[in-house]
Amino acid sequence: MELGLLYSGGKDSTLAALLLEDFYDVTLVTASFGITDAWEHARATAERTGFAFETVELDAEVADDAVETMVADGYPRNGIQRVHLHALEAVAELGFDAVADGTRRDDRVPSVSRAQAQSLEDRHGVDYIVPLAGFGRGAVDALVEETLDVRTGPSDQIPKADYEDELRALLAREHGEAAVAEVFPDHTQTYVEGFARADAESGAPDAK
Amino acid sequence: MELGLLYSGGKDSTLAALLLEDFYDVTLVTASFGITDAWEHARATAERTGFAFETVELDAEVADDAVETMVADGYPRNGIQRVHLHALEAVAELGFDAVADGTRRDDRVPSVSRAQAQSLEDRHGVDYIVPLAGFGRGAVDALVEETLDVRTGPSDQIPKADYEDELRALLAREHGEAAVAEVFPDHTQTYVEGFARADAESGAPDAK
Repeated sequence: MELGLLYSGGKDSTLAALLLEDFYDVTLVTASFGITDAWEHARATAERTGFAFETVELDAEVADDAVETMVADGYPRNGIQRVHLHALEAVAELGFDAVADGTRRDDRVPSVSRAQAQSLEDRHGVDYIVPLAGFGRGAVDALVEETLDVRTGPSDQIPKADYEDELRALLAREHGEAAVAEVFPDHTQTYVEGFARADAESGAPDAK
Repeated sequence: MELGLLYSGGKDSTLAALLLEDFYDVTLVTASFGITDAWEHARATAERTGFAFETVELDAEVADDAVETMVADGYPRNGIQRVHLHALEAVAELGFDAVADGTRRDDRVPSVSRAQAQSLEDRHGVDYIVPLAGFGRGAVDALVEETLDVRTGPSDQIPKADYEDELRALLAREHGEAAVAEVFPDHTQTYVEGFARADAESGAPDAK
């Protein structure tokens, strides 16, 4: 079964891919508005972890709406949520048997309700899978520690591979750098460099 | 990391074990009130699928309370929920690093809220993991079809391996067979016989 996983290059979506790889042919799909080349960072992580990779184009109007929402709100939550749902729709239209993302149990945003999940599945004839929906922060941190080599830091010092980088760039262009700092204060990001050292030889995770 | 998975011998908890086995040392744990020997069916499935197995004893008073609740309600939901939470507590006390169960996204019962999950984790110093929380019915059915050999049928014709069999036995003893039919009408159950034929040779699932 072919599965397209909405992919950011971060620890959560990389771990989600590892959880699914025994059961699906996983393709990492990074969504892009075409505003920056951030998706290239995701491609690099996909290459280092051995997963198939592709990009999907998002609708520029959704980026404009999301940025205006974030500026009006003063925080990114609703804008990110809007873009995430749009990106899931885009991946669902690519013809995979199943669509997935890296959302965790404790994420406040993005968050896809059970009704939204069912609607996505029914309209596109796919299964929508959230492999980390039943994993809390402690479990995710423990699994990431054992399986992945991760760089963690403030958003402006970590390669950002998905639409969030593009939303920040658009925000800066339309409203200035100060607006970025106001909307995204102290935002920590992760970027996966590859597998943890113990796994490097086999090239595959075995976290037991 | 050692993980104890609350195990019924059914398709959901068996699939949950397969999803976790690359990341944890999984022990299947079947909870029993000591009312019937139903847990022996779970042990048989554990042997056929190659997982470690143990049982954990539940408090008889919880069974009594659950049965009285089910009779008063006329349906099993609240009684099952009470017993499931009690069983999770019992597994959490066994000293594993992580505790899991086979609950799916679309299950109405048992259902553990995010607050209950956090409380279980904090009080016992464990991670609580629900590997199928992000899988809907369609995805679970597809994965089970590809990985497991399953018998499906009415509850009274399928070997039942967990506390539900015991609750039915206790219900029959205290309130008569008619009460069982009234509380559990047309209840369908599954029992895992082993891996699907395609996987039988390797003894391990590879559902790609």
